[in-house]
Amino acid sequence: MFYTDNKLQFPVRVENPNPLFARALQQAIGGVEGEIRVAMQYFFQAMGARGDPKFRDLLLNTAAEELGHIEMLATAVALNLENAPLSMQEDAAADPVAGAVLGGINLKNLLSAGLSAMPVDSDGVPFDMSHIYASGNIAADMGANVTAEATGRILAVRLHNMTNDPGMKEMLQFLIARDTMHQNQWLAAIEELGGNENVYPIPNSHPQSEENREFSYAFLGFQQDGSEPPQGRWSDGQSIDGNGTFASRPMQPLGEEPSLGRARPNSGAQAEQL
Amino acid sequence: MFYTDNKLQFPVRVENPNPLFARALQQAIGGVEGEIRVAMQYFFQAMGARGDPKFRDLLLNTAAEELGHIEMLATAVALNLENAPLSMQEDAAADPVAGAVLGGINLKNLLSAGLSAMPVDSDGVPFDMSHIYASGNIAADMGANVTAEATGRILAVRLHNMTNDPGMKEMLQFLIARDTMHQNQWLAAIEELGGNENVYPIPNSHPQSEENREFSYAFLGFQQDGSEPPQGRWSDGQSIDGNGTFASRPMQPLGEEPSLGRARPNSGAQAEQL
Amino acid sequence: MFYTDNKLQFPVRVENPNPLFARALQQAIGGVEGEIRVAMQYFFQAMGARGDPKFRDLLLNTAAEELGHIEMLATAVALNLENAPLSMQEDAAADPVAGAVLGGINLKNLLSAGLSAMPVDSDGVPFDMSHIYASGNIAADMGANVTAEATGRILAVRLHNMTNDPGMKEMLQFLIARDTMHQNQWLAAIEELGGNENVYPIPNSHPQSEENREFSYAFLGFQQDGSEPPQGRWSDGQSIDGNGTFASRPMQPLGEEPSLGRARPNSGAQAEQL
Amino acid sequence: MFYTDNKLQFPVRVENPNPLFARALQQAIGGVEGEIRVAMQYFFQAMGARGDPKFRDLLLNTAAEELGHIEMLATAVALNLENAPLSMQEDAAADPVAGAVLGGINLKNLLSAGLSAMPVDSDGVPFDMSHIYASGNIAADMGANVTAEATGRILAVRLHNMTNDPGMKEMLQFLIARDTMHQNQWLAAIEELGGNENVYPIPNSHPQSEENREFSYAFLGFQQDGSEPPQGRWSDGQSIDGNGTFASRPMQPLGEEPSLGRARPNSGAQAEQL
Amino acid sequence: MFYTDNKLQFPVRVENPNPLFARALQQAIGGVEGEIRVAMQYFFQAMGARGDPKFRDLLLNTAAEELGHIEMLATAVALNLENAPLSMQEDAAADPVAGAVLGGINLKNLLSAGLSAMPVDSDGVPFDMSHIYASGNIAADMGANVTAEATGRILAVRLHNMTNDPGMKEMLQFLIARDTMHQNQWLAAIEELGGNENVYPIPNSHPQSEENREFSYAFLGFQQDGSEPPQGRWSDGQSIDGNGTFASRPMQPLGEEPSLGRARPNSGAQAEQL
Amino acid sequence: MFYTDNKLQFPVRVENPNPLFARALQQAIGGVEGEIRVAMQYFFQAMGARGDPKFRDLLLNTAAEELGHIEMLATAVALNLENAPLSMQEDAAADPVAGAVLGGINLKNLLSAGLSAMPVDSDGVPFDMSHIYASGNIAADMGANVTAEATGRILAVRLHNMTNDPGMKEMLQFLIARDTMHQNQWLAAIEELGGNENVYPIPNSHPQSEENREFSYAFLGFQQDGSEPPQGRWSDGQSIDGNGTFASRPMQPLGEEPSLGRARPNSGAQAEQL
Repeated sequence: MFYTDNKLQFPVRVENPNPLFARALQQAIGGVEGEIRVAMQYFFQAMGARGDPKFRDLLLNTAAEELGHIEMLATAVALNLENAPLSMQEDAAADPVAGAVLGGINLKNLLSAGLSAMPVDSDGVPFDMSHIYASGNIAADMGANVTAEATGRILAVRLHNMTNDPGMKEMLQFLIARDTMHQNQWLAAIEELGGNENVYPIPNSHPQSEENREFSYAFLGFQQDGSEPPQGRWSDGQSIDGNGTFASRPMQPLGEEPSLGRARPNSGAQAEQL
Repeated sequence: MFYTDNKLQFPVRVENPNPLFARALQQAIGGVEGEIRVAMQYFFQAMGARGDPKFRDLLLNTAAEELGHIEMLATAVALNLENAPLSMQEDAAADPVAGAVLGGINLKNLLSAGLSAMPVDSDGVPFDMSHIYASGNIAADMGANVTAEATGRILAVRLHNMTNDPGMKEMLQFLIARDTMHQNQWLAAIEELGGNENVYPIPNSHPQSEENREFSYAFLGFQQDGSEPPQGRWSDGQSIDGNGTFASRPMQPLGEEPSLGRARPNSGAQAEQL
Repeated sequence: MFYTDNKLQFPVRVENPNPLFARALQQAIGGVEGEIRVAMQYFFQAMGARGDPKFRDLLLNTAAEELGHIEMLATAVALNLENAPLSMQEDAAADPVAGAVLGGINLKNLLSAGLSAMPVDSDGVPFDMSHIYASGNIAADMGANVTAEATGRILAVRLHNMTNDPGMKEMLQFLIARDTMHQNQWLAAIEELGGNENVYPIPNSHPQSEENREFSYAFLGFQQDGSEPPQGRWSDGQSIDGNGTFASRPMQPLGEEPSLGRARPNSGAQAEQL
Repeated sequence: MFYTDNKLQFPVRVENPNPLFARALQQAIGGVEGEIRVAMQYFFQAMGARGDPKFRDLLLNTAAEELGHIEMLATAVALNLENAPLSMQEDAAADPVAGAVLGGINLKNLLSAGLSAMPVDSDGVPFDMSHIYASGNIAADMGANVTAEATGRILAVRLHNMTNDPGMKEMLQFLIARDTMHQNQWLAAIEELGGNENVYPIPNSHPQSEENREFSYAFLGFQQDGSEPPQGRWSDGQSIDGNGTFASRPMQPLGEEPSLGRARPNSGAQAEQL
Repeated sequence: MFYTDNKLQFPVRVENPNPLFARALQQAIGGVEGEIRVAMQYFFQAMGARGDPKFRDLLLNTAAEELGHIEMLATAVALNLENAPLSMQEDAAADPVAGAVLGGINLKNLLSAGLSAMPVDSDGVPFDMSHIYASGNIAADMGANVTAEATGRILAVRLHNMTNDPGMKEMLQFLIARDTMHQNQWLAAIEELGGNENVYPIPNSHPQSEENREFSYAFLGFQQDGSEPPQGRWSDGQSIDGNGTFASRPMQPLGEEPSLGRARPNSGAQAEQL
Repeated sequence: MFYTDNKLQFPVRVENPNPLFARALQQAIGGVEGEIRVAMQYFFQAMGARGDPKFRDLLLNTAAEELGHIEMLATAVALNLENAPLSMQEDAAADPVAGAVLGGINLKNLLSAGLSAMPVDSDGVPFDMSHIYASGNIAADMGANVTAEATGRILAVRLHNMTNDPGMKEMLQFLIARDTMHQNQWLAAIEELGGNENVYPIPNSHPQSEENREFSYAFLGFQQDGSEPPQGRWSDGQSIDGNGTFASRPMQPLGEEPSLGRARPNSGAQAEQL
């Protein structure tokens, strides 16, 4: 069960409302790097968490925090839209700045939501729940969460660099700090699961003896002229999972040109294909 | 530029065509864990790669490989659909097995594609390019790629466990091996970028002195009764990025209940809100 | 069957073509509050209408009208795009107004449709037919239609407030009037079905004696501190459907923390979860 | 801010796990009539609530409840998938029942989520946040919520009628009761806003004297032969909003056949159109 | 304006209702080859038709017909769902045929629409209006329409081959005939525009003297070994548009490996990229 | 298998970076007329090509070329974003031109991708793979490809007309030339399949004797007043496929008003419908 106290986790102040910045903030709500995504991702990972129950609790706890982040950002969007022009009169040719504003905002924030936040990204595209990665594999989920928080913190930093509003900068430095913690938190969960050498390759429940070991640690080249692709840590030395040794070589096709033969009657093909 | 030789990277054989398995294989083509996703993700990450050019080349090289994996899987789908029923007569009441087959396949594989593969997932939902994560931050991209290969290998293992066809098992053990390599490859790229202590928090170009350090390494609790959430590696000891020390405490709201005040005239609200 | 006479239901005039307003008008075509939605919603509700056939006819009749509204709005979009800049030269630094215009329009209206309307919303997002609510329950359908016309009229009012063009204002005051009628029309249909006391709770064919009556008219509180949520008509007095009495109390969980146990072998989980 | 106690609002028991019913339950999670929709809709309506703050609190309180309903249903999905076949061996020709099961479930519940719930509907289509109606108009929002709860209760009734599992029936009768309350609750909010005569037409802040009153209460006919469409409460008597009198007549076009003239040079048209 | 007479263009009879076939028929309503697509495509092409007005009228006329085809198919879906099982009791282990039925239908037809048609495809994916091709170029539009009718007729043929129901076969043979006509009709429109030699390359208003003529009629090879790709009509002889002569040669890159240089400060990249 | 050499097919130069033009170019990457679409369409058509294998090879060869076109355009987008403003300070009121720029770009190119290209269209909508038409019918596929290249060339011409940058114009004139070739190439394939008289109606494997010949070549009118729709090549003379003679007449409904009768018990309808 979830509960609320209707308050904000951290104060949200906007000194100079800026509708263009409201549009940018929408990315942190409904973008694939945004807060709906992490809130729902941690929630659904918890719903499928099998094994040690502490991961379920950890996920639900952080899901609750992220719901509060949506609240903060949605409040920030509404406050930044406070003075947005409602009429094209306000942005006539005499006032190109206002024209740029009306042209530059997500019109749906005005036309659909009446100067409020929406679950859409900075270009007005609605968030789509296919971005909720919850695999039933606890290690894959933790890795997906590190990724989500990494892109989330990049976004918060870009938003921070984009604004001069002191209230907005303060709010974003709080969110950046939380993203620092959350990146570390999910990395710590991977460490608790045994670290890279125990965790990888994911899933570690599939016996590696069965996979085609000839290709498990080979860096293959697909350069048109048959040359080696760029060398690096990935082409030499022990593999990160500790189970093999990196090697490198150009790839040549092992399979032939496939043929599906002729089309079946009644399959809607042209007569020439039958 | 890209080139082709029309051949398959690895042989694709199907001994007992199974249209239900064709449906399952579609997830590995057009699912969010599938091969279109990694091919296009590495491609677009390469398109935005700034800094050391070897990462661009590494990404394009692996994108080329993944295109070949789509070829393999699409061939496998078509071969598994070889004997799929084209008529409801074939699966009349007298033959419930065939009925289950026609009811169980993605009908679009038959109705839209004429017994061929499509860029859709196992429930017939088309792949949507919002899943291409390419952030402009090389470390975030590498992390996203580890995640993609982890979910990709989980999927390949589940598909492998689902079939008894020797040809399909062989193909999947090859793909599982490649996913082992690719997980290791992107982890190796993170190591080449300096490893966890240098890489995190992502982006490492934002000065941590500016973020709200009080919250950077605090594990906050959102339990209704004010209790601590489950403790673990994430609540104690040095942070994974080496820049702080984990601590833990329940969270209390720092912000008040927000108020947006009254609605503006002409904003389409009810008179009672003005 | 449907027929056409190629004419418009109401005259569409644009005195001062404004490409930004064309973008705003797109919301009334392809937005979730727009005319494609109501036309198709009434159409599909008619297709599933069982029981008294007059509702089927009512729905098809209004669907025909809404098709005509799409025609009016699409014509208005094309006329407003009449002078849109086709070249970035036209909006060079010397002419920031034109720059705001080119930056502010849906580029697809120009690049995909050659200065014509599209079935997309004001941010260029295509309309998606999942918004067609047709439940097979005639009362739920009527309620959904009131909602659709309410948001439709809000949108038309916002568009009306945004423009000064006399032709556009006249067209929108016509559409606002039709939305007045349509709100009243679907409310009248609910009255014809017996009014709130007969219609609710929807569906009225499910015997209320079977539902868990302890919770049928209880306003439950989910405040973190166990306090009551805000009181109102919903927490006191007879229920609107006339079948119960409102009461109010804080909720406490009746279920335990769920456990899914350990993961199954071969399910792609980590070994630690098995 | 949101808080959790990790417990369920109401007990969730499954006596006879049924993977097909798990698929059906997905509609109540990620379908357009489902719980994600209402949770997020009430949340975002709260984020844009201007005017009397009690509506904001009411909305957030109910959003918290709906989050708990997602928990219940997601648990129910996982429990129903408990024995789902992981291998096609299990559903060989000898066992058509198991074959129907594997063919009939959402394969993503197995392949993507490892026998857990996902934010998708019963056909595996991910929920898309464009269904979150939050208009900035409190009356329109309340009406949208009645609609959401009506379709939600219809769905719960259909699910209830589909299963014989005592635990599932008990859970659904609880959810049906909550939908009864929530329909009444939002109708009560409309009453609190003044009832139909004050609330409609939405938005009531637009002066009706400005709209084209000739068409505000006229039921127009679009029958091919110029006849009247079916008469009813909507064609006669005082309008529901009390502001007019219903009348009825066939419609004839008031506008001419529109002409966009010739295409502009450089607009990508054929030469014949220029 | 559009009008209706509530009747069907052609009789729709179902002798043996088959819910699986209802699912298949959904593809002809909401699939990308379906009737919503052509109805809306011709409608929006008419909305953007500039130049000779007869094309606008032709398009609107055919749009009206296609609306009637949706009616026919939606009626057919509802009739085929007539006896669909509403309960899982009906398809217990003792009755695998019914089990296959419930597992094989689109559950949304039952759960969302109460045994009626929906604007979704055969896998339950909603139709999305991005498939409405209306380019503002009359020749491109006519070509897109030939394509739409070609895939539409293939679909109708596949559906026809799938069923034995005499009523359904009769209905489909009518629709197949209309698709024959419509393919011919749009091809005739291309002929009216001057035929292939005048129409192509589309748009014919761009002066071909400006394009890079070295590559306008060259069939380029992208074979890994530098060999020629398969020869045919496309590699030899006069071009179809009559403006050039086909030739063939392997392609070699004319551009270098691109470099985007280093990342900008404040762009959210890793420090190593700056 | 696919290979790469990391080089560009044609040089990409940008003399005056223009972020607004970067937004426009996105349409040619991720729009429905763009290069992802053709690359993936030809790829998946090849995967389902049955019959003469030269079509499979032709398709794969051209898919490889189109992948190279995505590379060119993605590079062009990144180069045009080179100087895009990262901060709202740079576009303060004093500088409306910069304001128009920040308001006019796809913010995701900056916020999600760090000044790089994305697989989205010019309004930031992600490409969706349902646009990959691969029917299993070789003639339908060739026709779909002509259509794709026609809209692609229209788009390239519009982009060409929009910019003055010499490098961009040169790149676009190359792409326009390739679209000329590709239109001709797929038309040549239709000629190789026998030309219009052999190819149409698609699919030519369905015996026309079985279709309802009364309607196969009749141009039907749906004018409200029963008049003829506009006459043309489509209403008179031999049909394009050579198999019939065009005629024209108004249509009258052959079917009655359909009735679905009353709703079934337990189907979630209102009691009044049962």
